[in-house]
Amino acid sequence: MKLVIVGGVAGGASAATRARRLSEEATIVIFERGPDVSFANCGLPYYIGGEITQRDKLLVVTPERFRDRYRLDVRTRSEVQAIDRPAKKVRVRDLATGRDYDESYDKLILAPGAAPIRPPLPGIDLPGIFTLRSLDDTDRIKAAVDRGARRAVVIGAGFIGLEVVENLVRRGIDTTLVELQDQVLPPVDKELTPPILDQMRRHGVRVVLGQSADGFEPDSDGLAVRLKSGERLPAHLVVLGVGVRPENSLAVAAGLDIGPRGGIRVNEHMQTSDPDIYAVGDAVEVRDFVTGEPTQVPLAGPANRQGRIAADHIFGRPSRYRGTQGTAIVRVFDVTVAMTGASEKTLRRLQRPFLKVYVHPSHHAGYYPGAQPMTLKLLFQPNTGKILGAQIVGGAGVDKRIDILAVAIQAGMTVFDLEEMELAYAPQFGSAKDPINMVGFVAAGLLRGDHPQVTADQLLDSTDSAGSSFLLDVRTPQEFQAGHIPQAVNIPLDQLRSRLGELPSDRPLTVYCQAGLRGYLATRLLRQKGFDAANISGGYTSYRLFDAARAPHATPVGKPSSV
Amino acid sequence: MKLVIVGGVAGGASAATRARRLSEEATIVIFERGPDVSFANCGLPYYIGGEITQRDKLLVVTPERFRDRYRLDVRTRSEVQAIDRPAKKVRVRDLATGRDYDESYDKLILAPGAAPIRPPLPGIDLPGIFTLRSLDDTDRIKAAVDRGARRAVVIGAGFIGLEVVENLVRRGIDTTLVELQDQVLPPVDKELTPPILDQMRRHGVRVVLGQSADGFEPDSDGLAVRLKSGERLPAHLVVLGVGVRPENSLAVAAGLDIGPRGGIRVNEHMQTSDPDIYAVGDAVEVRDFVTGEPTQVPLAGPANRQGRIAADHIFGRPSRYRGTQGTAIVRVFDVTVAMTGASEKTLRRLQRPFLKVYVHPSHHAGYYPGAQPMTLKLLFQPNTGKILGAQIVGGAGVDKRIDILAVAIQAGMTVFDLEEMELAYAPQFGSAKDPINMVGFVAAGLLRGDHPQVTADQLLDSTDSAGSSFLLDVRTPQEFQAGHIPQAVNIPLDQLRSRLGELPSDRPLTVYCQAGLRGYLATRLLRQKGFDAANISGGYTSYRLFDAARAPHATPVGKPSSV
Repeated sequence: MKLVIVGGVAGGASAATRARRLSEEATIVIFERGPDVSFANCGLPYYIGGEITQRDKLLVVTPERFRDRYRLDVRTRSEVQAIDRPAKKVRVRDLATGRDYDESYDKLILAPGAAPIRPPLPGIDLPGIFTLRSLDDTDRIKAAVDRGARRAVVIGAGFIGLEVVENLVRRGIDTTLVELQDQVLPPVDKELTPPILDQMRRHGVRVVLGQSADGFEPDSDGLAVRLKSGERLPAHLVVLGVGVRPENSLAVAAGLDIGPRGGIRVNEHMQTSDPDIYAVGDAVEVRDFVTGEPTQVPLAGPANRQGRIAADHIFGRPSRYRGTQGTAIVRVFDVTVAMTGASEKTLRRLQRPFLKVYVHPSHHAGYYPGAQPMTLKLLFQPNTGKILGAQIVGGAGVDKRIDILAVAIQAGMTVFDLEEMELAYAPQFGSAKDPINMVGFVAAGLLRGDHPQVTADQLLDSTDSAGSSFLLDVRTPQEFQAGHIPQAVNIPLDQLRSRLGELPSDRPLTVYCQAGLRGYLATRLLRQKGFDAANISGGYTSYRLFDAARAPHATPVGKPSSV
Repeated sequence: MKLVIVGGVAGGASAATRARRLSEEATIVIFERGPDVSFANCGLPYYIGGEITQRDKLLVVTPERFRDRYRLDVRTRSEVQAIDRPAKKVRVRDLATGRDYDESYDKLILAPGAAPIRPPLPGIDLPGIFTLRSLDDTDRIKAAVDRGARRAVVIGAGFIGLEVVENLVRRGIDTTLVELQDQVLPPVDKELTPPILDQMRRHGVRVVLGQSADGFEPDSDGLAVRLKSGERLPAHLVVLGVGVRPENSLAVAAGLDIGPRGGIRVNEHMQTSDPDIYAVGDAVEVRDFVTGEPTQVPLAGPANRQGRIAADHIFGRPSRYRGTQGTAIVRVFDVTVAMTGASEKTLRRLQRPFLKVYVHPSHHAGYYPGAQPMTLKLLFQPNTGKILGAQIVGGAGVDKRIDILAVAIQAGMTVFDLEEMELAYAPQFGSAKDPINMVGFVAAGLLRGDHPQVTADQLLDSTDSAGSSFLLDVRTPQEFQAGHIPQAVNIPLDQLRSRLGELPSDRPLTVYCQAGLRGYLATRLLRQKGFDAANISGGYTSYRLFDAARAPHATPVGKPSSV
């Protein structure tokens, strides 16, 4: 068996080492266009920022290690230029010498990754405009920073864009973030993003939403980004984080099936339309585990898993890729945002029925110092309660709760299962009723009909909310005075039983508190007393998130920059 | 409906508030012997230690709040003395006035909790000997510490004992920990405990294992604990943490069914043998979710859940308690220990078949600073791979991994499911191959026959291991020289292919590395080359844990104390 692998980073490297573990006898050749194999993509921004101080920490495995330990024939700076499928060989260019040669294969694995998009704008090739994908890219950006760049523009507020912003700020650089969409971190639903904007503001980052670059031009002090609005943003340094494009050119030229978004089509064994050719990682289209739709998820975990599965199948094992859930996490300064499964956006786009609830619990017991709050949004099927997706923003403990929910989705669990979860509780780590139990109680109670709810976006969308329903704030007068929903009337929960006479009996009541619990208690009480009451999911905290997400961003688009 | 609840802390409080949410009309009476309801049991040690500075933080809910918010008739300092089942009433003593009276019920919930065991030893009633269960206990211990206690003995190295030790040390008290068993934290398997002993040593705590107190006597400086060995331990303060006993006296006197360990017998709706009487919390016997055996788990999470279920059932809902997994966690200085499901001890006691593997991964990506190691032990069924239990010791991220495995057990998942888990990865939070994936790979590979293994305890138990098998250390010479298993021969993994001639072909090979991965690679290689090789699960790290767990404890029992 001669196995040839194109690409030596996450998916390719995993496939190669797995193949060797399965067969001492196989010939395994890896072609990698760059100088490095298996480097730590996800660490690159932190080397620029200085949290990772040693460059060689980023080299997870060196070509030498691959040779010595796994007896892999690793050829770096070697670009595969074409696949000759009938002859089962690839054409390779040795980038060092310029020499071209053919290499035959029995089985071929394509792991070319994805390329950062460089939009064809005027001036895009000016010095100082970078993308961040490779160690070379990292070195170039770090060199620019080390040379004393003082102003930067980051274009694109996705995962990489946000990580780059954090790390540039850590280096003391005055940074502006430009995003085409009207929110940062487009994969999550918008109401989860105000805490990110808040972090940006606290760290002096200007965020320009709903805008894109129109071009780049030289400037006295380096270059300038010209926005569609006409604004000019001078910068010593521009980092593009506007997405990636699957590296499909080899596959396209070889006539392999390609999906509508450009990803290489594979079956559950990671086989392309040519059964002797497999493809893995950021270049392929896979199945979304929750929605069943084709999707592309440029993440390291799935890439590694897919590489392993391709190698398994080549060596006669029936391993199958079960699809991706899109589980992802990013830390932005002091806030962490994580997601798994489908977002509300995705469910709406696919017109899938869903319900959603919001809770705002603390990471751990409130009586123990240092409890950090989080906002957890859960999406689930209306009929069965099956969990469809979750998003969390907050501090410590966000990663734990998203992982618990990722496993619950994998297991096909329902919101009723969340009620039952027996999680580890000591005051440093959680609560006797963990945030996961809490969101289970809320969602299950909704499905059981215990407490009808209104979501804050429904309230904000409804033009006649104030007209048709009576808005009841059951918090303390102090909380009410510190801020409340317009037209709300305040009756604290603990006085509610004795003040029922103040409530209208001929109109629906929309009840809320700070985070949802007291509103729920009030709703239960009122419904038993004959009122048509519903609770705002997540209370005033949810309302403020939606309200902030809808407000024009604090730094208005088009305002002349003081940078 | 008139519901009477005996006990107003975790289970009783949850039952009461749930009952009110389900019925505005019910009369709900709570009798609590102590002065407080719903206090934070799990926070008590940290108030003594000073991490929790405000006493009122420990009062989760006050009696007043129960009255105002939930319209509960809360009667503190009220002891229920007897149940008259035919008449459906309880006899209550008002501890403030000494007055006795009857209170009728339609349904009764017993949530009396468990009492700390005070062994009937000579001198047990001397001043300065405490248990820690209530706020009163806490106040007494804290007062003793505040008065300037300088030496303490803690008897019992379970959860509470360890937490008390940490907090006494935090207050600068010279502390000795005495434990009857030959290990600390008896609920976990012994090889997981050396890191706890290490923490004790680093913080100056003397640990005396395999010893118990024989009695207490007055001493010039306070009192002294007399051990069975004859040693005397002088102390200003003794805290007993030798376990709890279900408070079953009411139930016994009322003729309700009691389990062999003293817990009140209940069905899945938390009903006792009298269908009008329910019991919840530390006083009951429940089903172990994994083993199916009756068990008693004095934990806050299950107590809360059971209270909710009892209230549900009383008000016509079919909620069922699915049993407990015994998920628990404790932080001891800088180390965290957590467990879920069955331990190896339990599986051995019940003679259940199992396999086990060990991994020693880092919390997060090694290239990002601050990665803390952990040891993860996984127990699973030999045939199906169904997960039976897990134990983890380490630093950051232990709580996350135990919760993931707790959910996996709840879902009935197998080790093959762990391979597939798509968990949130960014360098601060995990790795592209998370510790959970890693342990899944190891366990699944074992079941698939990819790599036979030897566990370090098998090696240590086997008298002829060195005689019959060839012990091969595949680490670097530097690692080998820093410490290795006796009689091992060192051939670094990266040289193995060229040095196969140095290996015997007529004897089994037992291979190991530092944590298991290189040993696995070597095992795969050697088996494909025709050798009968097996890998030591978790490598030298596992070996050292077992070796340390078997060594006589560093502070020998019976050595005269310098305290």
